[in-house]
Amino acid sequence: METTTVREGNRTALKREMIIEAATEVFLAKGYLGTSMDEIAARAAVSKQTVYKQFVDKETLFVDVIRGVMGRVDEEIQAAAEALGHTDDPAAGLGLLAQRFLESVRRPQVLQLRRLVIGEAGRFPELGRTYWERAFETGLTTLSAGLRRLADRGLLRVDDADAAAQHFAALVLWIPMNRAMFCGPGEHLSDARLGETADTGVQAFLRAYSPTASG
Amino acid sequence: METTTVREGNRTALKREMIIEAATEVFLAKGYLGTSMDEIAARAAVSKQTVYKQFVDKETLFVDVIRGVMGRVDEEIQAAAEALGHTDDPAAGLGLLAQRFLESVRRPQVLQLRRLVIGEAGRFPELGRTYWERAFETGLTTLSAGLRRLADRGLLRVDDADAAAQHFAALVLWIPMNRAMFCGPGEHLSDARLGETADTGVQAFLRAYSPTASG
Repeated sequence: METTTVREGNRTALKREMIIEAATEVFLAKGYLGTSMDEIAARAAVSKQTVYKQFVDKETLFVDVIRGVMGRVDEEIQAAAEALGHTDDPAAGLGLLAQRFLESVRRPQVLQLRRLVIGEAGRFPELGRTYWERAFETGLTTLSAGLRRLADRGLLRVDDADAAAQHFAALVLWIPMNRAMFCGPGEHLSDARLGETADTGVQAFLRAYSPTASG
Repeated sequence: METTTVREGNRTALKREMIIEAATEVFLAKGYLGTSMDEIAARAAVSKQTVYKQFVDKETLFVDVIRGVMGRVDEEIQAAAEALGHTDDPAAGLGLLAQRFLESVRRPQVLQLRRLVIGEAGRFPELGRTYWERAFETGLTTLSAGLRRLADRGLLRVDDADAAAQHFAALVLWIPMNRAMFCGPGEHLSDARLGETADTGVQAFLRAYSPTASG
Protein backbone atom coordinates (compact mmCIF):
# COMPACT_ATOMS: atom_id res chain seq x y z
CA MET A 1 0.00 0.00 0.00
CA GLU A 2 2.76 2.37 0.92
CA THR A 3 4.39 1.91 -2.48
CA THR A 4 1.14 2.83 -4.18
CA THR A 5 0.87 6.02 -2.14
CA VAL A 6 4.44 6.99 -2.95
CA ARG A 7 3.80 6.32 -6.62
CA GLU A 8 0.65 8.39 -6.49
CA GLY A 9 2.52 11.17 -4.77
CA ASN A 10 5.14 11.08 -7.49
CA ARG A 11 2.48 11.09 -10.16
CA THR A 12 0.80 14.12 -8.62
CA ALA A 13 4.13 15.96 -8.36
CA LEU A 14 4.91 15.11 -11.97
CA LYS A 15 1.52 16.36 -13.10
CA ARG A 16 2.03 19.62 -11.19
CA GLU A 17 5.35 20.09 -12.91
CA MET A 18 3.86 19.40 -16.33
CA ILE A 19 1.05 21.87 -15.68
CA ILE A 20 3.46 24.59 -14.51
CA GLU A 21 5.66 24.03 -17.54
CA ALA A 22 2.68 24.22 -19.90
CA ALA A 23 1.36 27.29 -18.09
CA THR A 24 4.74 29.04 -18.37
CA GLU A 25 4.78 28.51 -22.13
CA VAL A 26 1.20 29.69 -22.63
CA PHE A 27 1.47 32.73 -20.33
CA LEU A 28 4.73 33.89 -21.92
CA ALA A 29 3.36 33.45 -25.44
CA LYS A 30 -0.12 34.91 -24.95
CA GLY A 31 0.05 37.20 -21.94
CA TYR A 32 -2.02 36.96 -18.78
CA LEU A 33 -5.32 38.08 -20.25
CA GLY A 34 -4.88 35.90 -23.35
CA THR A 35 -4.26 32.69 -21.39
CA SER A 36 -7.08 30.32 -20.46
CA MET A 37 -7.02 27.38 -18.07
CA ASP A 38 -8.46 25.29 -20.93
CA GLU A 39 -5.43 25.89 -23.08
CA ILE A 40 -3.03 25.11 -20.23
CA ALA A 41 -4.86 21.84 -19.54
CA ALA A 42 -4.72 20.89 -23.23
CA ARG A 43 -1.02 21.69 -23.50
CA ALA A 44 -0.24 19.70 -20.33
CA ALA A 45 -2.45 16.84 -21.56
CA VAL A 46 -4.49 16.76 -18.36
CA SER A 47 -8.12 17.55 -17.65
CA LYS A 48 -9.24 21.04 -16.72
CA GLN A 49 -10.46 19.65 -13.40
CA THR A 50 -6.94 18.44 -12.63
CA VAL A 51 -5.59 21.93 -13.24
CA TYR A 52 -8.18 23.51 -10.96
CA LYS A 53 -7.71 20.83 -8.30
CA GLN A 54 -3.99 21.55 -8.15
CA PHE A 55 -4.00 25.33 -8.52
CA VAL A 56 -7.45 26.71 -7.57
CA ASP A 57 -7.35 29.58 -10.10
CA LYS A 58 -5.31 31.34 -12.79
CA GLU A 59 -3.70 33.73 -10.31
CA THR A 60 -2.49 30.92 -8.03
CA LEU A 61 -1.07 29.09 -11.01
CA PHE A 62 0.70 32.26 -12.11
CA VAL A 63 2.44 32.49 -8.72
CA ASP A 64 3.90 29.03 -9.35
CA VAL A 65 4.97 30.12 -12.82
CA ILE A 66 6.86 33.07 -11.28
CA ARG A 67 8.43 30.74 -8.71
CA GLY A 68 9.44 28.30 -11.44
CA VAL A 69 11.00 30.95 -13.67
CA MET A 70 12.83 32.72 -10.83
CA GLY A 71 13.71 29.61 -8.82
CA ARG A 72 17.13 28.88 -10.23
CA VAL A 73 18.23 32.55 -10.15
CA ASP A 74 17.06 32.88 -6.54
CA GLU A 75 18.97 29.77 -5.47
CA GLU A 76 22.20 31.02 -7.00
CA ILE A 77 21.80 34.44 -5.39
CA GLN A 78 21.15 32.72 -2.06
CA ALA A 79 24.35 30.65 -2.34
CA ALA A 80 26.49 33.67 -3.28
CA ALA A 81 24.99 35.74 -0.44
CA GLU A 82 25.71 32.99 2.07
CA ALA A 83 29.30 32.75 0.87
CA LEU A 84 29.76 36.37 2.03
CA GLY A 85 29.72 34.96 5.56
CA HIS A 86 33.16 33.40 5.16
CA THR A 87 35.03 35.27 2.45
CA ASP A 88 37.88 37.60 3.33
CA ASP A 89 37.72 39.30 -0.05
CA PRO A 90 34.58 41.46 -0.24
CA ALA A 91 35.35 42.57 -3.81
CA ALA A 92 35.48 38.98 -5.05
CA GLY A 93 32.41 37.90 -3.07
CA LEU A 94 30.38 40.87 -4.24
CA GLY A 95 31.60 40.35 -7.80
CA LEU A 96 30.22 36.82 -7.76
CA LEU A 97 26.97 38.08 -6.28
CA ALA A 98 26.71 40.71 -9.03
CA GLN A 99 27.17 37.98 -11.65
CA ARG A 100 24.38 35.99 -10.03
CA PHE A 101 22.06 39.00 -10.12
CA LEU A 102 22.91 39.52 -13.77
CA GLU A 103 21.75 35.96 -14.48
CA SER A 104 18.22 37.34 -14.49
CA VAL A 105 19.13 39.51 -17.49
CA ARG A 106 20.62 36.49 -19.30
CA ARG A 107 17.50 34.35 -19.09
CA PRO A 108 14.94 34.97 -21.85
CA GLN A 109 12.11 33.55 -19.71
CA VAL A 110 12.86 35.94 -16.85
CA LEU A 111 12.83 38.89 -19.26
CA GLN A 112 9.63 37.77 -20.98
CA LEU A 113 7.90 37.29 -17.65
CA ARG A 114 9.01 40.70 -16.44
CA ARG A 115 7.79 42.34 -19.65
CA LEU A 116 4.48 40.54 -19.38
CA VAL A 117 3.91 41.62 -15.77
CA ILE A 118 4.88 45.25 -16.40
CA GLY A 119 2.77 45.40 -19.56
CA GLU A 120 -0.31 44.13 -17.71
CA ALA A 121 0.23 45.69 -14.28
CA GLY A 122 -2.01 48.63 -15.24
CA ARG A 123 -4.93 46.26 -15.89
CA PHE A 124 -4.02 43.65 -13.25
CA PRO A 125 -2.39 45.42 -10.30
CA GLU A 126 -2.51 42.16 -8.30
CA LEU A 127 -0.22 40.53 -10.84
CA GLY A 128 2.37 43.27 -10.46
CA ARG A 129 2.22 43.20 -6.68
CA THR A 130 2.63 39.42 -6.65
CA TYR A 131 5.69 39.70 -8.90
CA TRP A 132 7.13 42.48 -6.74
CA GLU A 133 6.81 40.38 -3.59
CA ARG A 134 7.78 36.97 -5.00
CA ALA A 135 10.47 37.93 -7.49
CA PHE A 136 11.79 41.42 -6.79
CA GLU A 137 11.82 41.68 -2.99
CA THR A 138 13.05 38.11 -2.54
CA GLY A 139 16.40 38.96 -4.12
CA LEU A 140 16.73 42.14 -2.07
CA THR A 141 16.06 40.34 1.21
CA THR A 142 18.70 37.72 0.44
CA LEU A 143 21.14 40.43 -0.59
CA SER A 144 20.49 42.47 2.53
CA ALA A 145 21.32 39.45 4.74
CA GLY A 146 24.50 38.85 2.72
CA LEU A 147 25.70 42.44 3.14
CA ARG A 148 25.03 42.25 6.87
CA ARG A 149 27.40 39.26 7.00
CA LEU A 150 30.19 41.42 5.60
CA ALA A 151 29.32 44.35 7.85
CA ASP A 152 29.27 42.14 10.96
CA ARG A 153 32.88 41.22 10.28
CA GLY A 154 33.90 44.83 9.68
CA LEU A 155 34.43 44.34 5.95
CA LEU A 156 31.76 46.89 5.00
CA ARG A 157 30.26 49.90 6.72
CA VAL A 158 26.51 49.53 6.49
CA ASP A 159 24.05 51.58 8.58
CA ASP A 160 20.95 50.39 6.74
CA ALA A 161 21.36 46.98 5.13
CA ASP A 162 18.11 47.25 3.16
CA ALA A 163 19.14 50.55 1.59
CA ALA A 164 22.60 49.13 0.85
CA ALA A 165 21.00 46.09 -0.84
CA GLN A 166 18.86 48.39 -2.98
CA HIS A 167 21.96 50.36 -3.96
CA PHE A 168 23.91 47.24 -4.83
CA ALA A 169 21.15 45.84 -7.06
CA ALA A 170 20.67 49.29 -8.60
CA LEU A 171 24.33 49.75 -9.50
CA VAL A 172 24.54 46.31 -11.07
CA LEU A 173 21.16 46.01 -12.77
CA TRP A 174 19.84 49.45 -13.75
CA ILE A 175 21.41 49.67 -17.19
CA PRO A 176 21.35 46.00 -18.31
CA MET A 177 17.81 45.40 -17.08
CA ASN A 178 16.43 48.51 -18.76
CA ARG A 179 18.33 47.72 -21.94
CA ALA A 180 16.92 44.22 -21.91
CA MET A 181 13.40 45.54 -21.26
CA PHE A 182 13.52 48.12 -24.06
CA CYS A 183 15.95 46.70 -26.60
CA GLY A 184 15.88 42.94 -26.05
CA PRO A 185 19.03 40.83 -26.02
CA GLY A 186 21.95 41.96 -28.16
CA GLU A 187 25.62 42.91 -28.16
CA HIS A 188 25.12 45.20 -25.12
CA LEU A 189 24.12 42.11 -23.12
CA SER A 190 27.22 40.11 -24.06
CA ASP A 191 29.10 38.46 -21.19
CA ALA A 192 31.93 40.97 -21.61
CA ARG A 193 29.60 43.98 -21.32
CA LEU A 194 27.74 42.48 -18.38
CA GLY A 195 31.04 41.68 -16.67
CA GLU A 196 32.16 45.28 -17.11
CA THR A 197 28.89 46.60 -15.68
CA ALA A 198 29.26 44.27 -12.70
CA ASP A 199 32.87 45.37 -12.07
CA THR A 200 32.15 49.09 -12.29
CA GLY A 201 29.06 48.71 -10.13
CA VAL A 202 30.83 46.69 -7.45
CA GLN A 203 33.72 49.18 -7.38
CA ALA A 204 31.33 52.12 -6.89
CA PHE A 205 29.47 50.16 -4.20
CA LEU A 206 32.70 49.38 -2.36
CA ARG A 207 33.75 53.04 -2.45
CA ALA A 208 30.36 54.01 -0.99
CA TYR A 209 30.24 51.28 1.65
CA SER A 210 33.87 50.52 2.50
CA PRO A 211 34.74 50.82 6.21
CA THR A 212 36.97 53.78 5.31
CA ALA A 213 34.38 55.65 3.18
CA SER A 214 34.05 59.29 4.18
CA GLY A 215 30.74 60.96 5.04
CA MET B 1 0.05 87.94 -47.59
CA GLU B 2 2.62 87.56 -44.85
CA THR B 3 -0.05 87.59 -42.18
CA THR B 4 -1.87 84.81 -43.96
CA THR B 5 1.29 82.65 -44.03
CA VAL B 6 1.91 83.23 -40.34
CA ARG B 7 -1.67 82.36 -39.58
CA GLU B 8 -1.38 79.22 -41.65
CA GLY B 9 1.85 78.30 -39.88
CA ASN B 10 0.10 78.74 -36.56
CA ARG B 11 -2.83 76.69 -37.71
CA THR B 12 -0.54 73.87 -38.82
CA ALA B 13 1.34 73.95 -35.50
CA LEU B 14 -1.94 73.90 -33.61
CA LYS B 15 -3.16 70.94 -35.66
CA ARG B 16 0.08 69.06 -34.98
CA GLU B 17 -0.35 69.65 -31.28
CA MET B 18 -3.94 68.46 -31.35
CA ILE B 19 -2.94 65.31 -33.23
CA ILE B 20 -0.11 64.53 -30.81
CA GLU B 21 -2.43 65.07 -27.85
CA ALA B 22 -5.07 62.78 -29.36
CA ALA B 23 -2.43 60.19 -30.28
CA THR B 24 -1.05 60.21 -26.73
CA GLU B 25 -4.50 59.49 -25.31
CA VAL B 26 -5.26 56.70 -27.78
CA PHE B 27 -1.83 55.03 -27.53
CA LEU B 28 -1.86 55.04 -23.73
CA ALA B 29 -5.39 53.68 -23.59
CA LYS B 30 -5.15 51.03 -26.30
CA GLY B 31 -1.47 50.15 -26.69
CA TYR B 32 0.61 50.42 -29.83
CA LEU B 33 -0.94 47.51 -31.69
CA GLY B 34 -4.47 48.51 -30.72
CA THR B 35 -4.13 52.07 -31.99
CA SER B 36 -5.13 53.07 -35.53
CA MET B 37 -4.42 56.29 -37.39
CA ASP B 38 -8.17 56.45 -38.08
CA GLU B 39 -8.99 56.65 -34.41
CA ILE B 40 -6.34 59.30 -33.81
CA ALA B 41 -7.70 61.38 -36.68
CA ALA B 42 -11.25 61.06 -35.34
CA ARG B 43 -10.22 62.02 -31.80
CA ALA B 44 -8.23 65.03 -33.10
CA ALA B 45 -11.15 66.00 -35.37
CA VAL B 46 -8.95 66.15 -38.47
CA SER B 47 -8.87 64.03 -41.61
CA LYS B 48 -6.73 60.92 -41.84
CA GLN B 49 -4.82 62.58 -44.71
CA THR B 50 -3.86 65.44 -42.41
CA VAL B 51 -2.45 62.98 -39.88
CA TYR B 52 -0.40 61.19 -42.54
CA LYS B 53 0.72 64.49 -44.11
CA GLN B 54 2.11 65.65 -40.76
CA PHE B 55 3.52 62.38 -39.42
CA VAL B 56 4.13 59.94 -42.33
CA ASP B 57 3.29 56.82 -40.29
CA LYS B 58 2.33 55.46 -36.89
CA GLU B 59 5.93 55.01 -35.78
CA THR B 60 6.88 58.60 -36.58
CA LEU B 61 3.84 59.84 -34.71
CA PHE B 62 4.80 57.67 -31.75
CA VAL B 63 8.22 59.35 -31.60
CA ASP B 64 6.45 62.68 -31.18
CA VAL B 65 4.24 61.18 -28.48
CA ILE B 66 7.37 60.09 -26.58
CA ARG B 67 8.88 63.54 -27.04
CA GLY B 68 5.67 65.18 -25.81
CA VAL B 69 5.37 63.00 -22.72
CA MET B 70 9.06 63.26 -21.77
CA GLY B 71 9.58 66.88 -22.86
CA ARG B 72 8.85 68.61 -19.58
CA VAL B 73 10.86 66.11 -17.51
CA ASP B 74 13.82 66.42 -19.90
CA GLU B 75 13.77 70.23 -19.70
CA GLU B 76 13.82 70.19 -15.91
CA ILE B 77 16.68 67.68 -15.83
CA GLN B 78 18.56 69.87 -18.30
CA ALA B 79 18.14 72.96 -16.12
CA ALA B 80 19.25 71.16 -12.95
CA ALA B 81 22.27 69.64 -14.76
CA GLU B 82 23.32 73.05 -16.05
CA ALA B 83 23.06 74.51 -12.56
CA LEU B 84 25.82 72.10 -11.48
CA GLY B 85 28.18 74.36 -13.47
CA HIS B 86 27.96 77.10 -10.85
CA THR B 87 26.97 75.56 -7.53
CA ASP B 88 29.49 75.23 -4.71
CA ASP B 89 27.33 72.68 -2.92
CA PRO B 90 27.42 69.37 -4.83
CA ALA B 91 25.06 67.68 -2.35
CA ALA B 92 22.38 70.33 -2.86
CA GLY B 93 22.84 70.43 -6.64
CA LEU B 94 22.69 66.65 -6.96
CA GLY B 95 19.73 66.52 -4.60
CA LEU B 96 17.80 68.83 -6.91
CA LEU B 97 18.84 66.75 -9.90
CA ALA B 98 17.64 63.60 -8.15
CA GLN B 99 14.27 65.24 -7.54
CA ARG B 100 14.05 66.12 -11.23
CA PHE B 101 14.80 62.53 -12.21
CA LEU B 102 12.13 61.33 -9.82
CA GLU B 103 9.61 63.52 -11.63
CA SER B 104 9.37 60.75 -14.20
CA VAL B 105 8.03 58.43 -11.50
CA ARG B 106 5.48 61.05 -10.43
CA ARG B 107 3.90 61.43 -13.85
CA PRO B 108 1.20 58.88 -14.71
CA GLN B 109 1.67 59.44 -18.46
CA VAL B 110 5.40 58.69 -18.25
CA LEU B 111 4.70 55.47 -16.34
CA GLN B 112 1.93 54.40 -18.70
CA LEU B 113 4.12 55.05 -21.72
CA ARG B 114 7.00 53.11 -20.20
CA ARG B 115 4.73 50.18 -19.38
CA LEU B 116 3.33 50.21 -22.90
CA VAL B 117 6.76 50.21 -24.54
CA ILE B 118 8.13 47.45 -22.29
CA GLY B 119 4.99 45.35 -22.75
CA GLU B 120 5.22 45.59 -26.54
CA ALA B 121 9.01 45.62 -27.02
CA GLY B 122 8.99 41.85 -27.60
CA ARG B 123 6.64 42.25 -30.57
CA PHE B 124 7.92 45.68 -31.69
CA PRO B 125 11.64 45.90 -30.98
CA GLU B 126 11.83 49.18 -32.95
CA LEU B 127 9.47 50.78 -30.47
CA GLY B 128 11.69 49.83 -27.54
CA ARG B 129 14.84 51.02 -29.25
CA THR B 130 13.22 54.33 -30.09
CA TYR B 131 12.18 54.80 -26.47
CA TRP B 132 15.65 53.83 -25.26
CA GLU B 133 17.29 56.43 -27.49
CA ARG B 134 14.76 59.25 -27.17
CA ALA B 135 13.73 58.91 -23.55
CA PHE B 136 16.25 56.84 -21.60
CA GLU B 137 19.63 57.85 -23.04
CA THR B 138 18.66 61.51 -23.31
CA GLY B 139 18.52 61.85 -19.54
CA LEU B 140 21.83 60.00 -19.08
CA THR B 141 23.62 62.23 -21.59
CA THR B 142 22.40 65.37 -19.85
CA LEU B 143 23.37 63.93 -16.48
CA SER B 144 26.81 62.93 -17.68
CA ALA B 145 27.50 66.50 -18.83
CA GLY B 146 26.28 67.83 -15.49
CA LEU B 147 28.57 65.54 -13.49
CA ARG B 148 31.51 66.58 -15.67
CA ARG B 149 30.82 70.19 -14.66
CA LEU B 150 31.31 69.24 -11.01
CA ALA B 151 34.37 67.10 -11.77
CA ASP B 152 35.98 69.91 -13.80
CA ARG B 153 35.87 72.12 -10.74
CA GLY B 154 37.26 69.39 -8.48
CA LEU B 155 34.00 68.88 -6.61
CA LEU B 156 33.70 65.22 -7.70
CA ARG B 157 36.19 62.58 -8.75
CA VAL B 158 34.90 61.10 -11.99
CA ASP B 159 37.04 58.94 -14.29
CA ASP B 160 34.17 57.89 -16.55
CA ALA B 161 31.31 60.41 -16.60
CA ASP B 162 28.96 58.07 -18.47
CA ALA B 163 29.40 55.30 -15.90
CA ALA B 164 28.96 57.85 -13.09
CA ALA B 165 25.74 59.09 -14.71
CA GLN B 166 24.43 55.53 -14.93
CA HIS B 167 25.24 54.99 -11.27
CA PHE B 168 23.54 58.21 -10.20
CA ALA B 169 20.34 57.40 -12.10
CA ALA B 170 20.48 53.83 -10.78
CA LEU B 171 20.82 54.85 -7.13
CA VAL B 172 17.94 57.31 -7.38
CA LEU B 173 15.53 55.46 -9.68
CA TRP B 174 15.96 51.68 -9.31
CA ILE B 175 13.51 51.14 -6.47
CA PRO B 176 10.85 53.79 -7.22
CA MET B 177 10.76 53.06 -10.95
CA ASN B 178 10.43 49.30 -10.45
CA ARG B 179 7.82 49.83 -7.77
CA ALA B 180 5.89 52.09 -10.08
CA MET B 181 6.17 49.58 -12.94
CA PHE B 182 5.00 46.62 -10.86
CA CYS B 183 2.78 48.10 -8.18
CA GLY B 184 1.51 51.37 -9.66
CA PRO B 185 1.30 54.59 -7.65
CA GLY B 186 0.75 54.31 -3.91
CA GLU B 187 2.10 55.21 -0.50
CA HIS B 188 5.60 54.07 -1.46
CA LEU B 189 5.65 56.79 -4.11
CA SER B 190 4.67 59.56 -1.70
CA ASP B 191 6.79 62.71 -1.79
CA ALA B 192 8.29 61.79 1.59
CA ARG B 193 9.37 58.31 0.44
CA LEU B 194 10.73 59.63 -2.84
CA GLY B 195 12.61 62.36 -1.00
CA GLU B 196 14.16 59.76 1.29
CA THR B 197 15.21 57.60 -1.68
CA ALA B 198 16.76 60.66 -3.34
CA ASP B 199 18.68 61.60 -0.16
CA THR B 200 20.03 58.11 0.49
CA GLY B 201 20.95 57.68 -3.17
CA VAL B 202 22.74 61.04 -3.40
CA GLN B 203 24.66 60.31 -0.18
CA ALA B 204 25.85 56.93 -1.49
CA PHE B 205 26.78 58.55 -4.81
CA LEU B 206 28.78 61.27 -3.06
CA ARG B 207 30.65 58.69 -0.97
CA ALA B 208 31.51 56.78 -4.16
CA TYR B 209 32.47 59.84 -6.22
CA SER B 210 33.74 62.40 -3.73
CA PRO B 211 37.26 63.73 -4.44
CA THR B 212 38.41 62.02 -1.22
CA ALA B 213 36.85 58.60 -1.96
CA SER B 214 39.27 55.75 -1.49
CA GLY B 215 39.98 53.13 -4.17
